[in-house]
Amino acid sequence: MKLVALKSSIDRKPRADDFTIVETAAPECPEGSVLARVVYVSLDPYVGSRIRGRHMGEAPPSPMEEAIPGAVIAQVTQSRSPDYAEGDYVFSMDGGWAEYVALDAGACRKIDPDAAPLRANLGVLGMPGLTAWAGITQLAEVGAGDIVLVDAAAGTVGGAVGQISRLNGASRVVGIAGGPEKCALVENTYGFDACIDYKSDGWRDRLAAALPDGLTVFFENVSADMAMIALGHAQPYARGVLCGLVDAYHTEEQATHPLNAGFIIGKRAKVMGLVVYDFYPCWDEFAAEAAPWVRDGRLQVAEDIVNGLENASALFEKLMDGRNIGKCLVKVSDEAA
Amino acid sequence: MKLVALKSSIDRKPRADDFTIVETAAPECPEGSVLARVVYVSLDPYVGSRIRGRHMGEAPPSPMEEAIPGAVIAQVTQSRSPDYAEGDYVFSMDGGWAEYVALDAGACRKIDPDAAPLRANLGVLGMPGLTAWAGITQLAEVGAGDIVLVDAAAGTVGGAVGQISRLNGASRVVGIAGGPEKCALVENTYGFDACIDYKSDGWRDRLAAALPDGLTVFFENVSADMAMIALGHAQPYARGVLCGLVDAYHTEEQATHPLNAGFIIGKRAKVMGLVVYDFYPCWDEFAAEAAPWVRDGRLQVAEDIVNGLENASALFEKLMDGRNIGKCLVKVSDEAA
Repeated sequence: MKLVALKSSIDRKPRADDFTIVETAAPECPEGSVLARVVYVSLDPYVGSRIRGRHMGEAPPSPMEEAIPGAVIAQVTQSRSPDYAEGDYVFSMDGGWAEYVALDAGACRKIDPDAAPLRANLGVLGMPGLTAWAGITQLAEVGAGDIVLVDAAAGTVGGAVGQISRLNGASRVVGIAGGPEKCALVENTYGFDACIDYKSDGWRDRLAAALPDGLTVFFENVSADMAMIALGHAQPYARGVLCGLVDAYHTEEQATHPLNAGFIIGKRAKVMGLVVYDFYPCWDEFAAEAAPWVRDGRLQVAEDIVNGLENASALFEKLMDGRNIGKCLVKVSDEAA
Repeated sequence: MKLVALKSSIDRKPRADDFTIVETAAPECPEGSVLARVVYVSLDPYVGSRIRGRHMGEAPPSPMEEAIPGAVIAQVTQSRSPDYAEGDYVFSMDGGWAEYVALDAGACRKIDPDAAPLRANLGVLGMPGLTAWAGITQLAEVGAGDIVLVDAAAGTVGGAVGQISRLNGASRVVGIAGGPEKCALVENTYGFDACIDYKSDGWRDRLAAALPDGLTVFFENVSADMAMIALGHAQPYARGVLCGLVDAYHTEEQATHPLNAGFIIGKRAKVMGLVVYDFYPCWDEFAAEAAPWVRDGRLQVAEDIVNGLENASALFEKLMDGRNIGKCLVKVSDEAA
């Protein structure tokens, strides 16, 4: 089978030609695991840190040997777990850029292929969708009349934040994104009331104009700078979800992604940290609620899909440069066996 | 009558000899106001900023003419408001360091002199007590099993935070204060489980030892530094109340009192800004709940009281230098007329 590996160890932002296709034997399937044919691989920014050994202390994949790690939707071809049968579709964070992966049964989630398009389980029904849903429904508790601001609004999480807010009764949803193409996507496809291009001159004035009554909820997806800008528009008692900034999770260093504590007080804001892992137990509840939204088009995400593992590295370079529009996926094999 | 005024304008930390007693006529009592005999004046740190024109945009009092502003408990001697009768005791934020004050009826709160000692209405039953109660019961919602950390624990707000937390079921209450005398007060009089002297060597280790299971609630009363230290001990999903830092209420500047946003995420913390003015509508509810605690000694505060306006300036200098222990009060006249 084929997999995509690093040519050699790197310690900088990866480029497409840092990767190569390696031919190797299909992995073993130990007791308690499944062997699965990969249908879709998700390309995600954290992998850029992971392959340099800079993500949560995990070792980088061995060059020329191990597949680049990534979340997958895959179909079970051999099961040594009582929980999965041949033919089942599964999601796992522990997959990789490969034709076949061996997955610990405990690290898989069964997917209903009829509930929604398979690949939605990597996007609006997957971790990004769960992240948005958790922040909006479980933390900020968005309801009727809320005015919601989210940054990185063209991304899977940001786009879902706006759409799920609307589905929960928000009266106004405003996004921030980089560039006219992304803003058009957010306004026209995701149905936000406005999306402000932070790369354009005068954008702070346009943001103020888009929030004539301020905001009651913000969802920070990018940086503390954006959170402070959002707080500047906050009505008293606004709720804010903090969700980006993974590199600073474990430091008390205040200069890293600073928020002005006094400004939080002045706004009487409630600022909440969100880590999506905590909401895995709610995944079925979320998926049951959101699958109908996906089926009837009320919860959408743009997708940047390439066919075949040989095209994964070019799409990943595009993602690293922020030139992608929407969720980055590699279709590795046909959905049906 | 006598009042205390500035000798001349100042733009630095005030000293005792910046003030003087001025003899003047008692103020007029316009329609809608009451004239009241001051019984107690509260001395508070914000007055140090106020008399330099640096508090919420308010003009400083005119030297040799106007009384230094301050919260008072006073007895009505003349009423031109249907809401107050001669003999009523009132609390007002709009009083001053004077024998008599004219108060707009709308800026007064009637005090029941039998519910608790009169002067408690400037402390544990007054704004500081309301601040603590609002943070603990309305924002952090402290209940059974909570572990609470509060800084400035020897102060009126901090001491009340710990005591009200305990009264609401907290299993462990730890304070931070400056110096052994304040720490002894917090442990022995306020009944905290521990109070750590942040001016002593190795205090961070002793704080960790005092919080073997971390904390579930912190109440920040001093600085963003303390909030970050508290977050370092936080269990996942801890709630934090931010309540100091008044100088930064109106700036988006992130370098002012910075909190690390990534660390808030990593701790899944909920951080809430508290401004006590918002809770004025709850004052009667709070006072009804807390007065019995004050009467039977479950809610206490140390007091630093001087007799007579001529001693106000020396106590104020002590307060400005942080040498006071507990609530600073000037007894201006007898409680009973």
